[in-house]
Amino acid sequence: MSQQSRQLRLGAIIQGPSGNMSAWRHPDAVADASINVEFVQQLARKAEQGRFDFLFIADGLYITPQSIPHFLNRFEPITLLSALALVTRHIGLVGTLSTSYSEPFTVARQFASLDHLSGGRAGWNVVTTPLEGTAKNFSRAKHTEHDERYRVASEYLQVTKGLWDSWEADAFTRDKASGQYFDPTKLHTLNHQGHYYQVQGPLNVGRTPQGRPIVFQAGASDAGKALAAEAADAIYTRQETPEQAKAFRDDVHQRLIAQGRSPDELLVFQGTSVIIGDSEADAEQRYQATAQLVTLEKALEYLGRYFEHHDFSQYDPDAPFPDIGNLGENSFRSTTDAIKHKARAGNLTLRQVALEEATPRPSFLGTAEQVADGLAHWFLSGATDGFIVRGGTPTAFDDFVDQVIPLLQARGLYRREYEATTLRENLGLPEPENQFAAKAQRVA
Amino acid sequence: MSQQSRQLRLGAIIQGPSGNMSAWRHPDAVADASINVEFVQQLARKAEQGRFDFLFIADGLYITPQSIPHFLNRFEPITLLSALALVTRHIGLVGTLSTSYSEPFTVARQFASLDHLSGGRAGWNVVTTPLEGTAKNFSRAKHTEHDERYRVASEYLQVTKGLWDSWEADAFTRDKASGQYFDPTKLHTLNHQGHYYQVQGPLNVGRTPQGRPIVFQAGASDAGKALAAEAADAIYTRQETPEQAKAFRDDVHQRLIAQGRSPDELLVFQGTSVIIGDSEADAEQRYQATAQLVTLEKALEYLGRYFEHHDFSQYDPDAPFPDIGNLGENSFRSTTDAIKHKARAGNLTLRQVALEEATPRPSFLGTAEQVADGLAHWFLSGATDGFIVRGGTPTAFDDFVDQVIPLLQARGLYRREYEATTLRENLGLPEPENQFAAKAQRVA
Ligand SMILES: Cc1cc2nc3c(=O)[nH]c(=O)nc-3n(C[C@H](O)[C@H](O)[C@H](O)COP(=O)(O)O)c2cc1C
Ligand SMILES: Cc1cc2nc3c(=O)[nH]c(=O)nc-3n(C[C@H](O)[C@H](O)[C@H](O)COP(=O)(O)O)c2cc1C
Repeated sequence: MSQQSRQLRLGAIIQGPSGNMSAWRHPDAVADASINVEFVQQLARKAEQGRFDFLFIADGLYITPQSIPHFLNRFEPITLLSALALVTRHIGLVGTLSTSYSEPFTVARQFASLDHLSGGRAGWNVVTTPLEGTAKNFSRAKHTEHDERYRVASEYLQVTKGLWDSWEADAFTRDKASGQYFDPTKLHTLNHQGHYYQVQGPLNVGRTPQGRPIVFQAGASDAGKALAAEAADAIYTRQETPEQAKAFRDDVHQRLIAQGRSPDELLVFQGTSVIIGDSEADAEQRYQATAQLVTLEKALEYLGRYFEHHDFSQYDPDAPFPDIGNLGENSFRSTTDAIKHKARAGNLTLRQVALEEATPRPSFLGTAEQVADGLAHWFLSGATDGFIVRGGTPTAFDDFVDQVIPLLQARGLYRREYEATTLRENLGLPEPENQFAAKAQRVA
Repeated sequence: MSQQSRQLRLGAIIQGPSGNMSAWRHPDAVADASINVEFVQQLARKAEQGRFDFLFIADGLYITPQSIPHFLNRFEPITLLSALALVTRHIGLVGTLSTSYSEPFTVARQFASLDHLSGGRAGWNVVTTPLEGTAKNFSRAKHTEHDERYRVASEYLQVTKGLWDSWEADAFTRDKASGQYFDPTKLHTLNHQGHYYQVQGPLNVGRTPQGRPIVFQAGASDAGKALAAEAADAIYTRQETPEQAKAFRDDVHQRLIAQGRSPDELLVFQGTSVIIGDSEADAEQRYQATAQLVTLEKALEYLGRYFEHHDFSQYDPDAPFPDIGNLGENSFRSTTDAIKHKARAGNLTLRQVALEEATPRPSFLGTAEQVADGLAHWFLSGATDGFIVRGGTPTAFDDFVDQVIPLLQARGLYRREYEATTLRENLGLPEPENQFAAKAQRVA
């Protein structure tokens, strides 16, 4: 890679028709986008045309009839990303998978396999699963408590990284004449005997093109940030102002240093939606047209999901946000803390809180120039390393690629061509060492 | 579908370089075939050109340094099949996944998602995992006992089928005007409370193009056949003679009838390898050239894997097959029973047994005419509904498509074009009813 100034990084969200929970009702929306393979391929092609670093898929493991419509019937991330592996060429493929309801051997294997299939473009967004009801789909008596979920995740990541190090990159010699298929000194058996997991190994997948798939972390509580500092290559977060975002990023950098890591080893991504208009008023009008698709009833359901599917329809919507005690602590903690704080600080009514959550005003809304200005400001002021972008209307993502990306490129902030073949290299992240090979080298 | 005589069904194995465990050493072999995405895509294209019903991938979850080379470093089935979904159009995508080391919610979801991605071409080969060592990769104190594994599998399949029935096919109305996304009367929550599993549901994937993915079963013990009769659409098995195969198929038919099912509802597939030559002698010579790549040492390791990685190198290879007691009972039971029986009946030496297992002589070896004759004989005599074909040499699968398929087509035994878009329709299997909708209908 050529020496150049710090580059902005971008991911593109795949999650139903772009926009809010009721965006499927928009006249321009593909209503079944969450399970429409043509739609997803088109979005992937557009993102690759825009030289996005990666596609990003959120996930969940528990629904009720009140869930967000595009959560009810959607592709599972591992299968969707794998399907995209052979119909895309450059773009990273990042999928969400929970450490609370899966097996490290299986997950290490699936992401390693995806990394091989895609030529080094796999990424895993590690989450611990917020919704308590999830336990009921997995034969569990109860959902593990918030901070313990992160302790489980920490050990889980040790195991998966250990499995990804099972084979050194040049372990497979495949010498037809001698019959030696691999060099036994380059095979490492993990033998993990931990508190939550006992995993022997080795993994039955060789070292991957990226060394290891890229690890994202998406949890903003204290425990979440600690896990990221310990084990992640990137964080997916959401802050409302550049000042808050900068404070978040600075905090993460401090934590990295405390762990003996360098701030260069982890990228912070702000999740954001965008709406582009011919004028600011046009963009505003597009936002309003989408926002008004959400009824109060649906907004209350949306809000309820963060608080263990609490029924907010029982309250007067125009009274102050009700006191609901600790509800939400054990699920989306960082999000529910922020909602409660905002409601109290602003003395907001339930209606205001619900509509603000369900139809959030995009941080970046305006003309293409204005949106590019906003992104550049956040980036250049050190508030973030990049963004995970979601269209705020069904057509906004295409607008973003067609109109905003060229401006970012013209300003020298964004690539015109992919620099490399792997996601890790495109993101400028360092190659991970193989822990076993490194240890052997230190001993020798 | 037009009315026509019973048609032969064919699957194609994806599993490293075709041939035996040492086929990677063959001059024509792609040595890294098990992890080479180009190789797999080429095989898939060739199989689709040959109008195969499906691709089939075996799997395993535990390796040791002595494992078969192409098991050490291979694609994981869900990811590989998903990757193939968008670069193939007609062929079914069948992958092996164990009910002993996975969660029904996750597995139901991944196969349902694959079914949507592929437009109705997903199939799941249900196995219970033979190797005891697998427990060590999954934080388990011990591998569940053979027959209990099948009891677990039986309940597991009830759960996955129940989850696949969560939504009726027309549940998603997506009416933009009214805001109704789905019809709540067509959503069914499983609420499974069983001995091994407690799974509430609903699944967050809508009813799939095939209704449900196709279920294969691959275990030939009594418990295995019972599971197939209860819950499978197809069986993958291996018998050595058409008489044995016919007895097996008749037995399965009896079991189906005892379950209140019709013999038409389940297809029996014989796993077989093929070698085609310009003459019979040429085919024989090709077989010998591949067989001699396997050393006695490797053959003993191969044999050992069936018996819990037993070390057969400790015995005199030219003495009669040793008495090893019950070893293997709890793993590959039907296979180890057959090996022990054959050794005793034929008074074979250890060397003979090991080489026969590691370098089995293909049941179908000869000129294309001879191979077509053999397949037709098995099929027409009622020994099988079809075959899952594996090349016996690195080039044999291509030869099969180029030379044998046209003969089968000319005899009216095999399709010239795909009849339909889903695997289920191509196989002529009945559409599954939705258990909840059917119950509601019976009550009404
Ligand atoms: C920006 C962001 C995105 C998230 N995405 C997901 C997701 O896709 N799936 C999921 O199960 N949880 C997701 N989470 C939830 C977290 O993984 C976590 O379980 C929950 O937020 C509680 O952790 P926290 O208090 O550390 O944020 C997300 C959280 C944040 C902050
Ligand atoms: C033809 C055949 C193919 C099989 N393929 C697999 C496989 O790919 N992966 C696996 O774990 N087990 C596989 N098995 C093993 C079975 O699932 C089962 O665990 C084992 O054979 C013991 O069951 P049985 O005694 O009923 O055959 C296969 C068995 C047979 C007979």
